[in-house]
This record gives sequence, structure tokens and C-alpha cells, in this order.
Amino acid sequence: MSVQPLAVGQKASLTKCFGPAEVAAFADLSEDFNPLHLDPAFAATTVFERPIVHGMLLASLFSGLLGQQLPGKGSIYLGQSLSFKQPVFVGDEVTAEVEVIALRDDKPIATLATRIFTQGGALAVTGEAVVKLP
Amino acid sequence: MSVQPLAVGQKASLTKCFGPAEVAAFADLSEDFNPLHLDPAFAATTVFERPIVHGMLLASLFSGLLGQQLPGKGSIYLGQSLSFKQPVFVGDEVTAEVEVIALRDDKPIATLATRIFTQGGALAVTGEAVVKLP
Repeated sequence: MSVQPLAVGQKASLTKCFGPAEVAAFADLSEDFNPLHLDPAFAATTVFERPIVHGMLLASLFSGLLGQQLPGKGSIYLGQSLSFKQPVFVGDEVTAEVEVIALRDDKPIATLATRIFTQGGALAVTGEAVVKLP
Repeated sequence: MSVQPLAVGQKASLTKCFGPAEVAAFADLSEDFNPLHLDPAFAATTVFERPIVHGMLLASLFSGLLGQQLPGKGSIYLGQSLSFKQPVFVGDEVTAEVEVIALRDDKPIATLATRIFTQGGALAVTGEAVVKLP
């Protein structure tokens, strides 16, 4: 088997649902116990009306995609930018996508566009990842 | 009690240790099962020699600091940049810090410098957060 060289335009994606158990687990890890994420009664008093998933939990899927799929094993995460555009409600499905948008000539470093879509297709999180290739 | 207005230079921090259980929990959430984080035998074959904490798990502490401490409850996370500078080994203590560096005149939006330090004091993660104030 030969390793396929990375090319601009290559994409990978994964779909996942963060329910109350996953959001509670992330609250413990991040120490972010904002009731907007955890308490339906509190969330009902906000503009969001229902509990929303932590933005950084959504963004964690980029770590999974970059490390497991594209570029895949052995890649080293150098940087990430994130812009949180739309809420994702707890229990909704999301799709995370990464797409190679630049490859450096001088070093084994790739830039990937990173996006999270809601189950309705809205762009919830956008940004770019910079990764050192294996 | 009056709410203290936010000022440039204000800081908040928290210290935490991510052990094997926390790293395994984050692998489940993020779908990032890179053995560099989870398998000491594999990690021993890499330049890092020991398992390292996922960069995005370290960065999750910014969510906790911003949402719980500074600016605190009701703030809305608009964006985050991250640069991963140094590895953090599983089981080591880290300190996360946020510092207000800019306040917009026209809108209730703050920019905070965000940093993670290793237990040895090295800068492991750096970047900036943009937050809408309550």
C-alpha cells in the first residue's frame, strides 16, 4: 500500500450527536458548568430557549477528524482558529468537515478549512486548522 | 452587589490535571483516538516519549474560564484562536489563564489573551478569545 499524497480539495467528515451525557462530561473536563449548556429551565430564560452544546465541544471534532482521517495518524496539530456562528442544540446531530486548502512547498505543513454544520445544514462553527504532516 | 465593569489587564486562571481517565473521556467525545494520547507503549516510540494531552482538551479550559470567571456567566463565545506550542504530558498539572486585552467601544465585545502553561512554566497553548459580554 502506498500513502496517498495530500492534495488541495481533499475532504473528510464525521457526524455525531452530543446529548446531555456528552455535554455533562465535557462540562466536567472543561470546568465550564454554564447552565446554558446543562439546565433546560435556565436555557428557557435565554435567547436560545433550549440547552446548547459548548462551542469547544463541537470544535473537538476537528481534533478527531485531523488525527484519525485527514491528514490522519501521526499528524501534529499546530493551530486552530474558530468562529462560533450559530448555536447547536443538545441532542441535535452535527456534521464536522475538514478540507485541505493549502500545502506549503517548504515544509510538511497543511492548512485545512474546518466547519461544523447543524442538522439543518447551517454553518455553526468555521475556522482553519494548521497541521504538521506525518 | 454591583457588577464590576471589565477592564483591560484583568486576569483569571485555573489549574487542573488531565490524567488518563480525562484523556480517555475526551477521546470518546472528540472521536480522537490517536494512540499518542492513549497508549504509553505507542507514545514511547514517538518524539514525545510519553502520552500527551489532546491540544483541544487543554483549550477547553478557556471555555471554563471565560464562562465561569472572566467575563463570567452570560458571556457568549464568538471566537478563539489557538497555537499549540509545547506538549503537555498526561498526568501533569496545567494552568490556564485569560487576560482582557481589548474592549470595543461600539459593542459589548471583549478580546482576551488565552494561555496554557505547563507545570514547569512553559507556554503550551496560546491564542485569543473573542467574547460577547452579558
